[in-house]
Amino acid sequence: MSTLQDNIGEQLEELYLDLAKEHLQPLWTQERDLIPWSPKPAAVPWLWRGKTLKALATRSGDLVTIDRGGDRRVIMLSNPGLGGKPFATSTLQGNIQFLGPHESAPAHRHSPDAIRFILQGEGVWTTVEGDACDMYPGDLVLTPNWTWHDHNNETDEPMIWFDGLDVPITLALDAIFFELYPSDLQPQPTVHNRSTRTFGGKGLLPLDAADPTRNYSPLFIYRWADTEAALDALLEERGGPMVSLQFVDPTTGRPVLPTIGCEMHRVIPGGRAKPVRKVGSAVYVVYRGSGMSIINGQRFDWGPGDTFVVPSWAAVEHEASSAADVFAITDRPVLEALGLYREETLDEAQEISSRFEG
Amino acid sequence: MSTLQDNIGEQLEELYLDLAKEHLQPLWTQERDLIPWSPKPAAVPWLWRGKTLKALATRSGDLVTIDRGGDRRVIMLSNPGLGGKPFATSTLQGNIQFLGPHESAPAHRHSPDAIRFILQGEGVWTTVEGDACDMYPGDLVLTPNWTWHDHNNETDEPMIWFDGLDVPITLALDAIFFELYPSDLQPQPTVHNRSTRTFGGKGLLPLDAADPTRNYSPLFIYRWADTEAALDALLEERGGPMVSLQFVDPTTGRPVLPTIGCEMHRVIPGGRAKPVRKVGSAVYVVYRGSGMSIINGQRFDWGPGDTFVVPSWAAVEHEASSAADVFAITDRPVLEALGLYREETLDEAQEISSRFEG
Amino acid sequence: MSTLQDNIGEQLEELYLDLAKEHLQPLWTQERDLIPWSPKPAAVPWLWRGKTLKALATRSGDLVTIDRGGDRRVIMLSNPGLGGKPFATSTLQGNIQFLGPHESAPAHRHSPDAIRFILQGEGVWTTVEGDACDMYPGDLVLTPNWTWHDHNNETDEPMIWFDGLDVPITLALDAIFFELYPSDLQPQPTVHNRSTRTFGGKGLLPLDAADPTRNYSPLFIYRWADTEAALDALLEERGGPMVSLQFVDPTTGRPVLPTIGCEMHRVIPGGRAKPVRKVGSAVYVVYRGSGMSIINGQRFDWGPGDTFVVPSWAAVEHEASSAADVFAITDRPVLEALGLYREETLDEAQEISSRFEG
Amino acid sequence: MSTLQDNIGEQLEELYLDLAKEHLQPLWTQERDLIPWSPKPAAVPWLWRGKTLKALATRSGDLVTIDRGGDRRVIMLSNPGLGGKPFATSTLQGNIQFLGPHESAPAHRHSPDAIRFILQGEGVWTTVEGDACDMYPGDLVLTPNWTWHDHNNETDEPMIWFDGLDVPITLALDAIFFELYPSDLQPQPTVHNRSTRTFGGKGLLPLDAADPTRNYSPLFIYRWADTEAALDALLEERGGPMVSLQFVDPTTGRPVLPTIGCEMHRVIPGGRAKPVRKVGSAVYVVYRGSGMSIINGQRFDWGPGDTFVVPSWAAVEHEASSAADVFAITDRPVLEALGLYREETLDEAQEISSRFEG
Repeated sequence: MSTLQDNIGEQLEELYLDLAKEHLQPLWTQERDLIPWSPKPAAVPWLWRGKTLKALATRSGDLVTIDRGGDRRVIMLSNPGLGGKPFATSTLQGNIQFLGPHESAPAHRHSPDAIRFILQGEGVWTTVEGDACDMYPGDLVLTPNWTWHDHNNETDEPMIWFDGLDVPITLALDAIFFELYPSDLQPQPTVHNRSTRTFGGKGLLPLDAADPTRNYSPLFIYRWADTEAALDALLEERGGPMVSLQFVDPTTGRPVLPTIGCEMHRVIPGGRAKPVRKVGSAVYVVYRGSGMSIINGQRFDWGPGDTFVVPSWAAVEHEASSAADVFAITDRPVLEALGLYREETLDEAQEISSRFEG
Repeated sequence: MSTLQDNIGEQLEELYLDLAKEHLQPLWTQERDLIPWSPKPAAVPWLWRGKTLKALATRSGDLVTIDRGGDRRVIMLSNPGLGGKPFATSTLQGNIQFLGPHESAPAHRHSPDAIRFILQGEGVWTTVEGDACDMYPGDLVLTPNWTWHDHNNETDEPMIWFDGLDVPITLALDAIFFELYPSDLQPQPTVHNRSTRTFGGKGLLPLDAADPTRNYSPLFIYRWADTEAALDALLEERGGPMVSLQFVDPTTGRPVLPTIGCEMHRVIPGGRAKPVRKVGSAVYVVYRGSGMSIINGQRFDWGPGDTFVVPSWAAVEHEASSAADVFAITDRPVLEALGLYREETLDEAQEISSRFEG
Repeated sequence: MSTLQDNIGEQLEELYLDLAKEHLQPLWTQERDLIPWSPKPAAVPWLWRGKTLKALATRSGDLVTIDRGGDRRVIMLSNPGLGGKPFATSTLQGNIQFLGPHESAPAHRHSPDAIRFILQGEGVWTTVEGDACDMYPGDLVLTPNWTWHDHNNETDEPMIWFDGLDVPITLALDAIFFELYPSDLQPQPTVHNRSTRTFGGKGLLPLDAADPTRNYSPLFIYRWADTEAALDALLEERGGPMVSLQFVDPTTGRPVLPTIGCEMHRVIPGGRAKPVRKVGSAVYVVYRGSGMSIINGQRFDWGPGDTFVVPSWAAVEHEASSAADVFAITDRPVLEALGLYREETLDEAQEISSRFEG
Repeated sequence: MSTLQDNIGEQLEELYLDLAKEHLQPLWTQERDLIPWSPKPAAVPWLWRGKTLKALATRSGDLVTIDRGGDRRVIMLSNPGLGGKPFATSTLQGNIQFLGPHESAPAHRHSPDAIRFILQGEGVWTTVEGDACDMYPGDLVLTPNWTWHDHNNETDEPMIWFDGLDVPITLALDAIFFELYPSDLQPQPTVHNRSTRTFGGKGLLPLDAADPTRNYSPLFIYRWADTEAALDALLEERGGPMVSLQFVDPTTGRPVLPTIGCEMHRVIPGGRAKPVRKVGSAVYVVYRGSGMSIINGQRFDWGPGDTFVVPSWAAVEHEASSAADVFAITDRPVLEALGLYREETLDEAQEISSRFEG
């Protein structure tokens, strides 16, 4: 206080009351809480066991019809740091979806972007804008913003996959829309996987493929065999302990969706890279292999089917005990679009931290 | 329910408990709440009187030194719908800043983008990355992401301006960084407003102006005289009752900042346009003139210095009682970058709504 | 020669004849001529006096009606190095157009981009896509690819201006189209200069200004007063002996046309910058002031109205004897779009040359 | 003539002489020749037989060492309409290169972009910026602007391929540079085809693949097997008689080079598409199959190894007698970058022509 007055405390009290009455708040009482030195995510590092997820999904399959109060039989990861919100991180939803034998999940569309990463089963397809996309383990299927989609299982076995959505972002931006398809399902075509026939070339596109108004990949499905081949090649080129790929829109080379980055990481035994931290969060899904990750100093051991989250700006190290392929969704495309992305390795980080927080 | 069992209710209860224990949640019990048919913003339409804001800011000036627990003497609009958060809308902060005679607000930088729109006073400047930007009523001053900035008042009069920030977005994305400048202020240059000498040409730029790595306008100040001339010209060209301009980066034609759109609206008496609704929210600051806005059916009368907010997807109509110039910040650049922007006039809206909610 | 034979010369002769018969040519007899170490432009540095241009244009005005075998009374600079082609450089056309009192040049459009830079007179306008653009000395007027345009002189005085076109490029690419307007002139509107009312803001655009399909500036006229102000400011900021601006599309910050760069250079007495050479050619038009330029070692003195050309990769130095404003058109946007642009100052150049030609 | 004078003819004559003396030309005596209604390419449709090309290339191999007056043993298609220039069309060079057993073509680089399309042989590689790219029939290999490249044949058999270059464009723009590598060859790596390991994923890229400063594909080799698979898929999706792919930069989805478009067309028996004409020219190389093309009404029968050219704006129809795969290079990326591209089918064309030329 620069002016020393007897009743300054009282006057301040009164000012704060008057501000509150007018729906106003002083910055000076809360500045560093409001704008901290660096991100203070509420979300915490966490891991869900694949076995648990599968067991609970299967129980849901027994007990809950697909149309009971919703269109999907989906179990949502709820990060313990987020106060009960059904979100894996502050920006990403990570769900497990269970589709029983001879079930269909009805057609709808929504402004949240969504992806499916297939963990187990086959014979199921997701119809995206009329294109039936067959789903096999390790495949990535896109259902971009406002595309109609339904899921169909004509086999005698249930199928389980991982759903990633940007719901927290579209909610935070008050930009969510949802619509039901006029009938239960889209017309189901005889020919499947048509997007791969048009956009599935390797460095080759139809002469008329470009569409500057489209902001998502028109290739709706990415096959595991192709992902594996790319991982093999990149590992050969760069060596371990870890190589990282991102799934891209073949017509632009950009992330498959404007809000969700899809990545595949191969980690091989024999070393651990320096810890890295990035602005933005991620949900990891272990496809195969096993290992452990140290997230902000906390160790998480993982194996096939396990899912874990890395909050924004958390330092992360990965190490494999057997050759591991780990899928991940991130919000990096959002942060890059808005000029908010940063990353650093810990050595740098320590030096920067000392400037920041010293 | 696919399996008809007597104790299905019990089993479900148990399932929900087991899910909760594992930090999982079912989607089917909350789907339409989570993903509504259309945006359900918590923020409500609201208006703060300029007179009130000025009076409270002045009282703060008397009572609170600028360095009391913070670097700025700032009063934050706190939307009554947001549960006590110091934000004007779900994505935007709208503040009133008061800088007393012979005061300086110390230099810092942060990852939130910020803008200043000057309401009253002169003789104050904001130094942005070493460039002292003089501030006069009606001017817009930018302090983009991670640019150093301090405010300086060497006059005998206080100065008041409106601050707009994207703090809710950078918080939601866990992407906030803050840093203090090594000394109290940046070196204060003799020559002011240097950005206008390099980037202030009308359709003219230095041959070396392009910089693809920069994602904000290198022109840090937009003068009221230029804004007024552009409003005059556009009104002549298009006629009333309303014309709308946006402030752009002259090197790209894009919004001045990647997260905040800055707009200036001129509304003249003699009519009211059809209601429009847009995804994304806005904070309006009445620079001069008076009139009223109907926001989702609720009427708000406004005059100079008043500030009001429009939540996402709210239908809005403006009507002037005297020729009015109204500044606004919006989150539209964010929504467009992420492919989430929509707008519609009410006639369309009604038809679309019937499909959506019928 | 890998095979040593007595009659190898004969066999080679025969091979060359057989190749020629089949419309084939060996590379090995001409490689370094075909692909030289660095550009070997046929165009030579040259200067045309303004006085001469004006006198001959005026004589044409007396002798030739505007519709005699063409739509325009235009005199074309014909670079002496180009073997009689009516082009100023290998890629640019530089013309002088004369429009007599009460004459109109009829409406047409063509795929070549064109610009007008006004040297003398007033009261004339060019109607571009229905928008009548008044022309005053120092103004730049655009008639982009495939826009209808006619010129109108309702005064008692003739008017002279400089035309710049990309005809050599559109010819080299076999991409020329031409079309006559259905009637003699476009409808002539009462309100003139409408593009300046919509797109003439300083860092301000209508909310709906962006149009990703448009590849030229929708602002058709750039006023001398604005150019002068920008030159003043940039000179103040950077100091002499020379500052250089380019005219840009305000909606993108890019060159006004995809094939022609428009630049304005201010050169003040008191120094000479290091010689620079750039890939691509330029046509300079002295608007006011005087000085000299050294182009590949050859000195050209110039004053108001003079026009001179700089071929590709020629080293150029400018020096003013009185403060000079020099307009220029270049093909730089083409070279940059195709990844072929380079520039260097002579010090660098010398070092590079020694590597290239040593 | 507006002024009727006796000696007007004499005066005009004198004017034309005076103009010529000053290196000036009147537009009005040549306007429609200079700017025709539509492109009037000098290049003519033409076809070279593969058998002839191979025979002459082989004779050259016997007679001419690779370093005789040049760095390459290359035979250049010389379009009969182009007055003896060694160019296939006004903008494209199409060459046949012959590399004998145990020969190497030394390392150099140049600003013209170049591509290789392999017709016959194997065991040869082109080293591009240190990356040895193995060449097999049907493969496309890039040597972008200013990348070092040499060719190496360590086998006992000669190899023949098609070279496409943009030399006429870089010449017309006076933008040609050439440089010899400091030694005869680049270091030849043990591991080949490294670009395919980094950039060869199908819709997958390394996380760090983006590079906004690079304007060509970092994938230097496109394998025939991938091309064939993409042709199969697109034909299945769209049906015949013809499908067309373009080779793209996987990091951007754009043409592999900024000046040369690379396309692959599959034509199957059983129909002929409507004639199409496009601004810009093309050189076609028949990889396999046979058929005929009608170019501006002239029929050309073709089979494996034949090469033919289509000038700008020529109407073209293709028809296969046996399933044919035809590679092509075009200048379309140039025309699109400059806003000069157009195309039309003949029905449209006829209607437009009647407006143009009627």
